[in-house]
Amino acid sequence: MRVSKFFLSTLKEAPAEAELVSHRLMLRAGMIRRLAAGIYTWMPLGLRVLRKVEAIVREEMNRAGAIELLMPVIQPAELWQESRRWEKYGPDLLRIKDRHERDFVIQPTSEEVITDIARRELKSYKQLPVNFYHIQTKFRDEVRPRFGVMRSREFIMKDAYSFDVGKDQMLESYQAMYDAYVRIFSRLGLVFRAVRADTGQIGGSASHEFQVLADSGEDAIAYCANSDYAANVELAEAAVPGPRPEPREAMEKVPTPGKSTCEEVAELLHLPLSRTVKCIMLYAEGKVQMLLIRGDHSLNEIKASKVAGLAHFRWASDAEIQSALKCPAGYLGPVGIPATMPLIADREVAALADFVCGANEVDYHLRGVNFGRDCREPDRIADIRKVIEGDPSPDGKGLLTIVRGIEVGHVFALGDLYSRALGATFLDAAGEPQVMEMGCYGIGITRIVAAAIEQNHDQRGIVWPEPLAPYSVAIAPIGYDRTEAVRTAADRLHDELQSAGVEVLLDDRGERPGVMFADLELIGIPHRITVGDRGLKSGDVEYQGRLDSEPIRVPLAGAATFVRERMAARS
Amino acid sequence: MRVSKFFLSTLKEAPAEAELVSHRLMLRAGMIRRLAAGIYTWMPLGLRVLRKVEAIVREEMNRAGAIELLMPVIQPAELWQESRRWEKYGPDLLRIKDRHERDFVIQPTSEEVITDIARRELKSYKQLPVNFYHIQTKFRDEVRPRFGVMRSREFIMKDAYSFDVGKDQMLESYQAMYDAYVRIFSRLGLVFRAVRADTGQIGGSASHEFQVLADSGEDAIAYCANSDYAANVELAEAAVPGPRPEPREAMEKVPTPGKSTCEEVAELLHLPLSRTVKCIMLYAEGKVQMLLIRGDHSLNEIKASKVAGLAHFRWASDAEIQSALKCPAGYLGPVGIPATMPLIADREVAALADFVCGANEVDYHLRGVNFGRDCREPDRIADIRKVIEGDPSPDGKGLLTIVRGIEVGHVFALGDLYSRALGATFLDAAGEPQVMEMGCYGIGITRIVAAAIEQNHDQRGIVWPEPLAPYSVAIAPIGYDRTEAVRTAADRLHDELQSAGVEVLLDDRGERPGVMFADLELIGIPHRITVGDRGLKSGDVEYQGRLDSEPIRVPLAGAATFVRERMAARS
Repeated sequence: MRVSKFFLSTLKEAPAEAELVSHRLMLRAGMIRRLAAGIYTWMPLGLRVLRKVEAIVREEMNRAGAIELLMPVIQPAELWQESRRWEKYGPDLLRIKDRHERDFVIQPTSEEVITDIARRELKSYKQLPVNFYHIQTKFRDEVRPRFGVMRSREFIMKDAYSFDVGKDQMLESYQAMYDAYVRIFSRLGLVFRAVRADTGQIGGSASHEFQVLADSGEDAIAYCANSDYAANVELAEAAVPGPRPEPREAMEKVPTPGKSTCEEVAELLHLPLSRTVKCIMLYAEGKVQMLLIRGDHSLNEIKASKVAGLAHFRWASDAEIQSALKCPAGYLGPVGIPATMPLIADREVAALADFVCGANEVDYHLRGVNFGRDCREPDRIADIRKVIEGDPSPDGKGLLTIVRGIEVGHVFALGDLYSRALGATFLDAAGEPQVMEMGCYGIGITRIVAAAIEQNHDQRGIVWPEPLAPYSVAIAPIGYDRTEAVRTAADRLHDELQSAGVEVLLDDRGERPGVMFADLELIGIPHRITVGDRGLKSGDVEYQGRLDSEPIRVPLAGAATFVRERMAARS
Repeated sequence: MRVSKFFLSTLKEAPAEAELVSHRLMLRAGMIRRLAAGIYTWMPLGLRVLRKVEAIVREEMNRAGAIELLMPVIQPAELWQESRRWEKYGPDLLRIKDRHERDFVIQPTSEEVITDIARRELKSYKQLPVNFYHIQTKFRDEVRPRFGVMRSREFIMKDAYSFDVGKDQMLESYQAMYDAYVRIFSRLGLVFRAVRADTGQIGGSASHEFQVLADSGEDAIAYCANSDYAANVELAEAAVPGPRPEPREAMEKVPTPGKSTCEEVAELLHLPLSRTVKCIMLYAEGKVQMLLIRGDHSLNEIKASKVAGLAHFRWASDAEIQSALKCPAGYLGPVGIPATMPLIADREVAALADFVCGANEVDYHLRGVNFGRDCREPDRIADIRKVIEGDPSPDGKGLLTIVRGIEVGHVFALGDLYSRALGATFLDAAGEPQVMEMGCYGIGITRIVAAAIEQNHDQRGIVWPEPLAPYSVAIAPIGYDRTEAVRTAADRLHDELQSAGVEVLLDDRGERPGVMFADLELIGIPHRITVGDRGLKSGDVEYQGRLDSEPIRVPLAGAATFVRERMAARS
């Protein structure tokens, strides 16, 4: 392809609203253009990358035996009412009315539609297992879309749904998808981890996220370098602490004027932060509740919400705290609290003796506090903290490391959530109706493009993994518009590579080398061949890989072979 | 592919609401399933065909130099307000609001968005011409969706938009697309015609429709077998009649009791129908107007709407007619009508002498009527009738034939309609801003699948043109579940064809031959190889093309080669 026949539209500066590197680079490289908040046009350069992602996903889904179909973007409300997601799904679900005032949604996912197809089409256990997928435009009406296609409203997702006879078969389908996802993200050339995850809004019994590792990732992932343990920090279990030691100190009230954080109090008392306890006041089930977390830890809200009595908690207000304990936040503690106020301790706090906490009196803390002696034992002990770097891995095989990741795929063992709601049953071998077991499996096609850039860029622009590059090889002729020899050599090399099936982009604009190189580096083409007058005199051209610091001279005659060998070595 | 790994779901009977052959066959073959009115899921078998259409369209668009991008499904209202289509487009345009109550549309086409991209990205004449296209989901909120994917609400369209310097360059882009469309529909294996068409709602200066010929087509096409003249009957010009003869009869009032149609009157008076004139009463520009058409002709409403004074006509009501002429429809004529009532005659009527028309009195007609003598000359003479079979071709090269067609593509020379409204300008060679010229070019991807079936089917099912077949070859083993030899031979043949790159479907269900053959004929696979115990004893299998009346015996060893030769011969 020649640049003059393609459409390249690079920018020196990205618009100010683009915060994320991938967003800035996609705008600067002319891969996307904003149409409205969270809605983007995929320009020719971006679309080429998108199609590569799509093709690899499709190939591996087919290889795994999944069957492609295409469900509509616009779906009738009735099915969403049947599954009760019409009410349960928040305002992210874009609800619309057609000209006859009938209700529809613009699909964010297709569980309802595929389950409707399954209940109509799948009658016998002989038709199971089956796994249907589609690659389709989705819409999620994010309240604050941002980060370009990383968190857009309109996006393209591959979503697959398996229908199985019983839990065991479903877990086989789940594993097959898990394996396919490993192949997909490996083939895409991305560094990723499959991590255990919360099942969240969709529900179900088991779930893994596929996270592309990148410093800018929204998710924190805890993993053990010595084992295959990896989990979203939202879900990662903290190791069980040892038994609580015997009390050794008497409780003592100490003045801590103006010191309202654990850090300040620990410093004042010359104690390690891990000896302090902070109180987190929540409101749930009609009352204010006290949660205790070690000073060096922080609350894991997902875990907390799973504690009995805390399902739909919110933060208690200052007024509620004041009214319940006659003391403001910053000086709170479990000593002397009303018997009616639930007290929930993290497992690490429950294992402490002689700890420091607030005295429920402004400017005072207590030290040497012990459960059962100075205050009552917690009503509940639970794992409610976030794991941190250096924590023991829950599998006992080493310590946890925390990295950041971008979620690009998700597999769910759904169970019978939707099949039961919609009555998707089959006849088993004995002729009895059974509810199908389901799994669902998503990949964010558009998001992968942004995640790949977050993981692969430098100060000059994008550094595409070979399988995602919009073009594999760029030819940069110096003086294409002026020098016959350069034009001839560049044209021939272009044609030679193209007929060998290499995706090659010839910059025939006649731009200055600086402009050409900057553009080609910005858009991230992995291999560049520079054709210049001087080199040609000795029959040479220059090759430079996208991350190479220097070019190397290569004979023009062997340049096509040389670059193809480099491509093979990289992929 | 094995049927057991694919998803085949055929039906003996189509649901009653399916009127059209293609709709019935697509449902019966399990290509589509209805989700809501005018909204369909493309099932695995249907999607394979859809992707083939898409691939051929994409290849030829790229070959023609068009550049693919991907514009969003959901588009902000602002751009549609700028083009004024927000108001002008009827309720077919699905208007929606997001969670912030901002207005959006679900795109039926993308003129606004692409013109917005053009005005931002294209600054200089050096960047022109350029032709952008995308293949994307569209929505048109049809009041009465019907005929399956032939007239659905959600559908997939390829729409391309060219931006050019001046009219000449635009017409070159138009011609390039015209040529690409000819290649596309030829490669799809369809019998089609490119016909001149009305520019309709989108507007512009020139337009061709690409019509797949089929008896069930919604459009009537007039063409001349001796020349390249072809036009939608909506637009087809009637040949200019000869001069009006001199009057030879005196006007005479004749009783025609109960005879209110031209046919009845012609029969009563023993005159040819072509001597009668019927009155069509329209209401436009605040008054009732009289149009005269020969009794054997019918009104072309599109042409009529282009006559000065008739732009937004509607039919006059019975009450309006009665009030204007004191006579009901059925006995109307131009003699003695008020001077204020406009009188418009078709050219053929204006060329008549001694004609028959109503007497503006119930149960009476007039014969021997002549313009200028018995009634005033028409205020306007215009071509307002539909052409009919046997009319002279307007190019004078023969007679017209009328066939029916299904519109699957449309090319428009748009001009500056959108570029002017949205201010899409470029700097010309002199540095002066100029408004871009545009063309737009659509292909109904989903509709093509239905149109292909309308053109290619028989009483047993679909007869796919080779390039559209979901699979090229079917292997039908008799007793696959029972006979080792059959299973081995069928499996080997399947693997051999598959490794040769042939899309082959092995029916490994172990069904009875009748069921197997019926299914494979219904879904329209072009080539079938039947593997049976008896044939194998003499080393033979049976080959049968989808339209062949009898199978022929072929040695098993050469079967793969044989079928590949047949495929090559057909494509």
